[in-house]
Amino acid sequence: MTKVTRIGILTVSDRASAGVYQDISGKAIIDTLSDYLSSAWEPVYRLVPDEARQIEQALEHLVDEEDCCLVVTTGGTGPAERDITPEATEAVCDRMMPGFGELMRAESLKYVPTAILSRQTAGLRGSSLIINLPGKPRAIRQCLDAVFPAVPYCIDLMGGPYLECNPAVIEAFRPAS
Amino acid sequence: MTKVTRIGILTVSDRASAGVYQDISGKAIIDTLSDYLSSAWEPVYRLVPDEARQIEQALEHLVDEEDCCLVVTTGGTGPAERDITPEATEAVCDRMMPGFGELMRAESLKYVPTAILSRQTAGLRGSSLIINLPGKPRAIRQCLDAVFPAVPYCIDLMGGPYLECNPAVIEAFRPAS
Amino acid sequence: MTKVTRIGILTVSDRASAGVYQDISGKAIIDTLSDYLSSAWEPVYRLVPDEARQIEQALEHLVDEEDCCLVVTTGGTGPAERDITPEATEAVCDRMMPGFGELMRAESLKYVPTAILSRQTAGLRGSSLIINLPGKPRAIRQCLDAVFPAVPYCIDLMGGPYLECNPAVIEAFRPAS
Repeated sequence: MTKVTRIGILTVSDRASAGVYQDISGKAIIDTLSDYLSSAWEPVYRLVPDEARQIEQALEHLVDEEDCCLVVTTGGTGPAERDITPEATEAVCDRMMPGFGELMRAESLKYVPTAILSRQTAGLRGSSLIINLPGKPRAIRQCLDAVFPAVPYCIDLMGGPYLECNPAVIEAFRPAS
Repeated sequence: MTKVTRIGILTVSDRASAGVYQDISGKAIIDTLSDYLSSAWEPVYRLVPDEARQIEQALEHLVDEEDCCLVVTTGGTGPAERDITPEATEAVCDRMMPGFGELMRAESLKYVPTAILSRQTAGLRGSSLIINLPGKPRAIRQCLDAVFPAVPYCIDLMGGPYLECNPAVIEAFRPAS
Repeated sequence: MTKVTRIGILTVSDRASAGVYQDISGKAIIDTLSDYLSSAWEPVYRLVPDEARQIEQALEHLVDEEDCCLVVTTGGTGPAERDITPEATEAVCDRMMPGFGELMRAESLKYVPTAILSRQTAGLRGSSLIINLPGKPRAIRQCLDAVFPAVPYCIDLMGGPYLECNPAVIEAFRPAS
């Protein structure tokens, strides 16, 4: 039996987790990944408030228990007092991937000068990649379009499942070796 | 009574603080901010040598006692032995803002390849934003021109005063929400 | 007697250090630096496996005992489990130089979208500069071409030897002061 590829989607939002509004950002990530990936996968979805311990536990659970090779977060990356997703991400990662945040901010800067306010980062926990995305659905797609071409090869290098993309939508880049 | 907006300007320089030369960098920051801002504000100026504890205490004082919503430093960001402003900044901040340093270096790289030697960063202490600028007046203006459009919205997000800019000089960007 | 400028080259590779293949990356760095530098210098070469303590000890030795003003590493900067060169570098540095990694990734992104997977950094130990480069010879040259123009001035600022470059190959930039 082949294990199906699992991808964690973690929405971090006080208001969405309190039921004040619907989580459209988490849904935007699932829709975008469905659009990108031609190989089989299933989402593992979590929604937590902007609380360090809850974010950390959700990330640990998605990686260690749910066996997600990739976890994508949305929300909590700005300068507001409750925005602590990058710190929680760093707390559970062994090694950081600074290139993701750099490229996502550079990409978002093409649209808004306030892109520098996003503190989003990415890192590795064991053999899983965790990527922070911003909270706004439009910015989510812009950021994923920029970094996702490198994601399948990253997961290859960590010994994870072989992700295949729909080339009409996005090109997974694997260098000839 | 409305509280007036206070902005800290911290010059870090062994020689200027010893009176060997005048601090033209701190003055360049005050002039630039006066040029940018159309809403009322007042500068709170400090000058310290390149000593970790003195830089940290000045930053803490400007934020915690002087109630500055924004503190801008100049000097001490290079690779010389005494350059420790970024480390002192990180020591007093709760959360870092990597996008500021990235954009200021990318901007300075348009002028000089040695822009990568600047270790300048930015971060948040409580609800205040601290930004390191380089020491040279011309580089100060280039860096502020690049990042300042995002500063008023950053301060909004932290619950600080509403900064207004002179649109003939610089555009404060606030996304439609 | 003038001290000759010494530059450390540290190859980090399990397989090269086990003799499974030849270290062509370390050689590529020596060739590139020979191409760049017109002033006298000598390489101090080390080869270690991807083991944190061995990388750290090699870096400490090259800086503290061998008196290298510059140490360039190759290998171990990716997301694979054994890739820990950036962490070992940070462990032995007093202060970090984020601009190097940012520019090298931005430069490599012109060629491959997987450039964001490189976690390479740079930092200062005492008055020496340590720069991580990727493992592939072609990427080594691309990265060095991007950052090396700033290296001689960086070493000047730290009180090190005066490096001169062959202007037909690369331009060392020193700002008029």
